[in-house]
Amino acid sequence: MKAYIITIGDEILLGNTLNTNAAYIGAQLFDISIPVIKTSVVGDDNSIILNELKYASEVVNLIVLTGGLGPTHDDVTRKSIVDFFKTELIENSEVLEDIKTLFEKRKRKVTNVNIDQAKVPKIAEVIRNQLGTAPGLWIEKDDKIYVVMPGVPYEMEAMMVSTVIPKLKEINGPGQKILKKKMLQTTGIPESTLYERLGNLDELLQGVKLAFLPNQFGVKLRLSFEGEDEKDLNNKLMEVEQRIRSKVGRFIFGIGDEQLEAVVGRLLLERELKIATAESCTGGLVGNMLTNVSGSSRYFERGVICYSNAAKVEILKVDEDTLAEHGAVSMEVAMQMAEGVKSTSGADIGLATTGIMGPTGATADKPIGLVYIGYCDDKVCTARKFNFGDDRMLNKQRTAQAALDFLRRQLLGISPDD
Amino acid sequence: MKAYIITIGDEILLGNTLNTNAAYIGAQLFDISIPVIKTSVVGDDNSIILNELKYASEVVNLIVLTGGLGPTHDDVTRKSIVDFFKTELIENSEVLEDIKTLFEKRKRKVTNVNIDQAKVPKIAEVIRNQLGTAPGLWIEKDDKIYVVMPGVPYEMEAMMVSTVIPKLKEINGPGQKILKKKMLQTTGIPESTLYERLGNLDELLQGVKLAFLPNQFGVKLRLSFEGEDEKDLNNKLMEVEQRIRSKVGRFIFGIGDEQLEAVVGRLLLERELKIATAESCTGGLVGNMLTNVSGSSRYFERGVICYSNAAKVEILKVDEDTLAEHGAVSMEVAMQMAEGVKSTSGADIGLATTGIMGPTGATADKPIGLVYIGYCDDKVCTARKFNFGDDRMLNKQRTAQAALDFLRRQLLGISPDD
Repeated sequence: MKAYIITIGDEILLGNTLNTNAAYIGAQLFDISIPVIKTSVVGDDNSIILNELKYASEVVNLIVLTGGLGPTHDDVTRKSIVDFFKTELIENSEVLEDIKTLFEKRKRKVTNVNIDQAKVPKIAEVIRNQLGTAPGLWIEKDDKIYVVMPGVPYEMEAMMVSTVIPKLKEINGPGQKILKKKMLQTTGIPESTLYERLGNLDELLQGVKLAFLPNQFGVKLRLSFEGEDEKDLNNKLMEVEQRIRSKVGRFIFGIGDEQLEAVVGRLLLERELKIATAESCTGGLVGNMLTNVSGSSRYFERGVICYSNAAKVEILKVDEDTLAEHGAVSMEVAMQMAEGVKSTSGADIGLATTGIMGPTGATADKPIGLVYIGYCDDKVCTARKFNFGDDRMLNKQRTAQAALDFLRRQLLGISPDD
Repeated sequence: MKAYIITIGDEILLGNTLNTNAAYIGAQLFDISIPVIKTSVVGDDNSIILNELKYASEVVNLIVLTGGLGPTHDDVTRKSIVDFFKTELIENSEVLEDIKTLFEKRKRKVTNVNIDQAKVPKIAEVIRNQLGTAPGLWIEKDDKIYVVMPGVPYEMEAMMVSTVIPKLKEINGPGQKILKKKMLQTTGIPESTLYERLGNLDELLQGVKLAFLPNQFGVKLRLSFEGEDEKDLNNKLMEVEQRIRSKVGRFIFGIGDEQLEAVVGRLLLERELKIATAESCTGGLVGNMLTNVSGSSRYFERGVICYSNAAKVEILKVDEDTLAEHGAVSMEVAMQMAEGVKSTSGADIGLATTGIMGPTGATADKPIGLVYIGYCDDKVCTARKFNFGDDRMLNKQRTAQAALDFLRRQLLGISPDD
């Protein structure tokens, strides 16, 4: 099976919106060994969409479309589907029920345009949408599969996970070559250093493929290996993983899609420890990341966002003389913030951030990107200095990630300097 | 002139890298009134690239390619160009000079593969690259223009700004139609309701184009209008904007790319008001959004993330009896949290969130997605109930956005119920 992804939307052509949908779908199909040979973006224009469908159906047997299923005048995809398959729209009672339920839950009145969305092309099987009003469509014709989904990313993603991927897996069936992959997530080490530490890649990998996928939080290492025997593939991947861990294991915080906040959450839960945060420069981002994890109330006691010096003194009992002598962005204040939030909250651990995020706020000896992270538990109070870059948003994200990784290393007894 | 953008690279097809290049080029071309009718992504495969070039040259007269110009074995774009135009490679002394200068600056030795990059297709004019080793190519043939650039975003962007856009402007010449656009950002109103409230679109727009761009935070309305006289276009857009504002003005929080957190920041600054936040269910996200704005320390006094009831009582002076009677997720507690953080911090405004984000935590009478937002200033203490959905991350984002919009409406004296 080969795939062609068509993304529909003027806003993507015009560069207002990044095409995250094509990336998501491409990655998901790769995971089940379906190669994407092309993706395209076209506007909300019936004749162009029809052309695209025609062309795609000549070169592949799986066509995935997203976008243009909304309720307004500029959404034409459903009409293109009706035209392409020479079919008609019929009201689907299940979809109508879903739409009514959704509006009831949100305490809103169903409008006529929404009711119209319950009409689906006769030829299509419906992919139900629990998160929005536009249903997805699954169409099989002439040995080809057409999957049509809304452009709203989380609606499309939910349909991929619940319906599209399972169905494709079933159709692709057994007897296929198996692709096994494993993602190792690192943080706190630059791509080039990681590359150097891994040494000779041929020796390390012995046929397994390795891709370096860097982003602002770290570098993901994607291992993949294709073959016929699942057990062999798993063994081979495990051997390579072990060799990688022996070289850079301390920087690997998780596998797969696991987020750092989920990893530290699990560690805290296992150790029955409660944490409190004191954030200056991250402004609430560390707390936000920790509480993105469901169940975090079991270990996240509270947080303080103390942007002003007054708040640092008043709530966190930071010493005024220390502030005057070393400044708010200093090793000493980071430690006192961590200690202060720990003692005032009664939590087992205090974690603190202070730094200069930019674009303003730099001084002669304190450049933009300078950050201190403080950590305090019953046995140790410590802090560490970091130097990030010039971009405010990236600096906040990197600082929050570094704070959580500092916490991870403390919980696991890994030296922060290694 | 019409454009077709071809992005080349396996990493984009596989979803490892977002196609930011196509978005950038699309936006740049839109700004000089060259419509992009399609963008495509294909892998590093000579025959597929040739197909794509052939197809594109049949439907448009401007073809922009990026990617696949690097020095390694898996970069094939230059070969495809040679094949497509039936031309040959010749060494370009200017390019060779550029490459040598670049390596000297980086204190590195020029390798043979880099010297090979100085060979360019005979038919092409070179677009010099100051930031990397692969030159860009400008080819004119049969009244069509082909622009070939490296895939590294900042190298491509520099070429667009220095060479490609100026040349295209010159070729397109004067007397071209001008395209004017304006983006109005709404929040707190679903796409379908917005659509209905706008009424008859033909009457409203009178020739101006309108696109609805929804995301989890709200719906953007993009107006665009093409014509010959800049003043006329501006007047027409302003008229349409006024008509839209008369119908749904209260939901429009900003124009262009402006974020809600920047809008409320400006309002607070103008009024010389300081704010403090008390977050339960958003876990720090409101503080994080507010502090994403540079200079927010001038109006953001502090924040408290009080996940536990103990923290609500201790730090925010929420009444224990109220907590027992109404529960933490209630109108009463939201108001007391806002009042508490205002009075304990000495800020002018207190803003609070409490809710059930899911997937766990629901009770018989308090479903997932139930949220209360509290607001308190010197004159008024109030709270409002919201019902969001089932997804934890979306619920957090929607709650934080709703809290900031509640604040905006209070600052502007707009009733929250309209």
